[in-house]
Amino acid sequence: MTQQTPLVERWGIHEITLQGPQHGNPFLDVSLSAEFTHRHRTVSVDGFYDGEGTYRIRFMPDTLGTWRYVTRSNASELDGHMGELVCIEPTAGNHGPVYVRGTYHFAYADGSPYFPIGTTCYAWVHQGDALEEQTLRTLKDSPSNKLRMCVFPKDYAYNKNEPVYYPFERNASGGWDLARFSPPFFRHLEQRIAQLRDLGIEADVILFHPYDRWGFSRMGAEVDDRYLRYVVARLSAFRNVWWSLANEFDIMEGKTLADWDRFFRIVQESDPYRHLRSVHNCHTFYDHARPWVTHCSIQHSDLSRVREWRNTYRKPVVVDECCYEGNIEQTWGNISARELVHRFWLGTVGGGYVGHGETYLHPEDILWWSKGGVLYGDSPSRIAFLRRILDEGPEDGLEPVIANWREQAAGREGEYYLFYFGVHQPAVHTFDLPGGPYVAEIIDPWEMTITPVPGTWEGRFRLDLPGRPYLAVRFRRVR
Amino acid sequence: MTQQTPLVERWGIHEITLQGPQHGNPFLDVSLSAEFTHRHRTVSVDGFYDGEGTYRIRFMPDTLGTWRYVTRSNASELDGHMGELVCIEPTAGNHGPVYVRGTYHFAYADGSPYFPIGTTCYAWVHQGDALEEQTLRTLKDSPSNKLRMCVFPKDYAYNKNEPVYYPFERNASGGWDLARFSPPFFRHLEQRIAQLRDLGIEADVILFHPYDRWGFSRMGAEVDDRYLRYVVARLSAFRNVWWSLANEFDIMEGKTLADWDRFFRIVQESDPYRHLRSVHNCHTFYDHARPWVTHCSIQHSDLSRVREWRNTYRKPVVVDECCYEGNIEQTWGNISARELVHRFWLGTVGGGYVGHGETYLHPEDILWWSKGGVLYGDSPSRIAFLRRILDEGPEDGLEPVIANWREQAAGREGEYYLFYFGVHQPAVHTFDLPGGPYVAEIIDPWEMTITPVPGTWEGRFRLDLPGRPYLAVRFRRVR
Repeated sequence: MTQQTPLVERWGIHEITLQGPQHGNPFLDVSLSAEFTHRHRTVSVDGFYDGEGTYRIRFMPDTLGTWRYVTRSNASELDGHMGELVCIEPTAGNHGPVYVRGTYHFAYADGSPYFPIGTTCYAWVHQGDALEEQTLRTLKDSPSNKLRMCVFPKDYAYNKNEPVYYPFERNASGGWDLARFSPPFFRHLEQRIAQLRDLGIEADVILFHPYDRWGFSRMGAEVDDRYLRYVVARLSAFRNVWWSLANEFDIMEGKTLADWDRFFRIVQESDPYRHLRSVHNCHTFYDHARPWVTHCSIQHSDLSRVREWRNTYRKPVVVDECCYEGNIEQTWGNISARELVHRFWLGTVGGGYVGHGETYLHPEDILWWSKGGVLYGDSPSRIAFLRRILDEGPEDGLEPVIANWREQAAGREGEYYLFYFGVHQPAVHTFDLPGGPYVAEIIDPWEMTITPVPGTWEGRFRLDLPGRPYLAVRFRRVR
Repeated sequence: MTQQTPLVERWGIHEITLQGPQHGNPFLDVSLSAEFTHRHRTVSVDGFYDGEGTYRIRFMPDTLGTWRYVTRSNASELDGHMGELVCIEPTAGNHGPVYVRGTYHFAYADGSPYFPIGTTCYAWVHQGDALEEQTLRTLKDSPSNKLRMCVFPKDYAYNKNEPVYYPFERNASGGWDLARFSPPFFRHLEQRIAQLRDLGIEADVILFHPYDRWGFSRMGAEVDDRYLRYVVARLSAFRNVWWSLANEFDIMEGKTLADWDRFFRIVQESDPYRHLRSVHNCHTFYDHARPWVTHCSIQHSDLSRVREWRNTYRKPVVVDECCYEGNIEQTWGNISARELVHRFWLGTVGGGYVGHGETYLHPEDILWWSKGGVLYGDSPSRIAFLRRILDEGPEDGLEPVIANWREQAAGREGEYYLFYFGVHQPAVHTFDLPGGPYVAEIIDPWEMTITPVPGTWEGRFRLDLPGRPYLAVRFRRVR
């Protein structure tokens, strides 16, 4: 080849740009894909129309070495383009996409541990650059490594502003032309997802939600399906994308369980990279046991049930919403920081993962949970402390290792135990630990202190404890 | 009649003492009862053998006026004794026995409201006079108006001392002669029940329990049944007696559900005064819907389920055990005072009643929950404060009046509302109250403050709230 072969980092993006037909409706009329081949393996990737005659195909190589491609299209200008790229080692901080590992946990594609510490800013990409950039600055200093965010704008209490961008073009009568996507909307969305990626934050992209005054929650099956394929074609090459089929799917009127099953299938078929897939409930769970669901995304307040959900669905349990720290009127948005931190710990020793959100009343209705901005609460620093505990723990994650009427603990048998006593305040506790010997530390999740207990410990032994509630005890095997 | 006719206060005790046979085994051989007649109504009352040839019949008259009686016995010395008494107005503080009123609540026989605020000293009558008298002094200054207490001594952690009295005589080989009750044991028990009565405290008498090293939990059906009839004959004339068939019936080995049904039937048949009857669970509830159960006596930690249990059983719900304030190793005995107070309030706004207990480690193993003594905890003063709230509320008790995803409230529609926000900390709340207008007060159950909100309120309105968790709001209709 005469031109320089592009070098693309592993799990980076190689984008092919082509010029093609503008007549008719390219969104409907033109099909475009490419086959990327590395040795004997071929990956088929859908392209998309980006407006003004421009077509793009985005590819995320996952294997080092040379990849060759050829495009396929029903438009002759777009068909049969060939090329190659060389996939090279990833840059620092690029660990690849997150996948399920060990049934109940996650890891990056490069094998690095990933413990989801999510937060929620549903409509942050619809707030304009100033606020969106402030949100990014806040996220940079927060413990979060996952963000729940909607594609569509949000209409709800505290959310009455119009978005900057709309996902569809207007038609002649001022309504939406649901057959024509608006590329600037998606370019903006992609910019924000790329910025999250660069901060090490997974974008848990919510594809549908019920809080809508524009009609995007009731577009009909044909448009829904085309929208899903378009979003997947545009976004799936971003390594930090997760697919959340919906926020509160069960209160979306006009969509049946069969629709949700079909949406999952479309996303699963269209995404060459198998990004994580889930759906979030309001009152009623989707059947997370279905094969196309990679992990449970749960709204529930009772974190003591994480073990039950693990056993029911045999997948990672992420309680993305367990009420938010805040002071608004709505029950889901007014628990104390202490209660939220307590719920994080309960879910953690249950062998699950818990998500954050914040909803303090604001004079301009800028509540973190939906618009982003800055964090005012007392829980993020404690969640950062818990993240540190997780990072220092077993890299395959915490399993429920002891469960009886008096103890809740997670860890790895013979290696590591994290007990959390919650509302209980024993002044003494009898532990019975196989393996060891262990060093013991008393952890105060609120005060963020880790106090070593002198000596080493093994077998059955009694330990004096501070007799205060909301404490944890960590045992780590002496190396 | 030549002798002075005895005057007995309503719901007091008239005791007939007779001398009879001492030969053989009077406990087995001699039957004794009396029929008490007021106008056209006759009440049949069992007597009992009190040792050394003395027989007694105790009667609690419930209706003013003249009662005449005649005794019946298979022993000629005891048969056909006749007499009369005049039932007069009760003395101050004597409101009669407590019965169910209004399906989910209680009242004294004289119509005065009774809101159970129970505590637990399982084995307090087995600790010797010094400690028992200290317990009575503590109870005098406590908010409790009900005490859960066992007839039999207790063997368990922190409970290894021998009792002063045993319920049966020893036989020649040093074992128990289960055919011969020991009257001093029961006289002592009666003395303590009478002292509770004089303090205005209901004695929730636990007839069986599993924590036993003497054999009283496995006496066999014949002895069990005789024991029940004997206890009922001795105690039922005490107006402050409630019958709790067992503590943790479901972990008593060797007793079947049919046994518990039969025990209920025996108590129901033998007690002329229909004292309250319940049975307390460990893991599994007895079917409180059965007709002989007057109210639910529940051990459970989730006080948000009180409404569910009301709806299931259609009876008063008393969560006698929801974990105790303390710092011992056992989970049921180491929650914080704040958590216990929170549970009291949750159960209260669910339309139920909650019980107290205390289990702080003690150098001599004197833990309130079992032995009595003194109270060290921080919950009793807050429970006294809640009792004051109940006393100031509707005299028919608090009904769940509002239940939705954002509110838990109890009261009486159009008259009185008590909202409790628990872990939620709204800075504002929209109320929608029929009737009124109301005065509003913000209640801090921990700080024990009641802060009036200026103005009067009705219909749908927003109220600014302090934005702290664990607060309540009370609305009372302006008279």
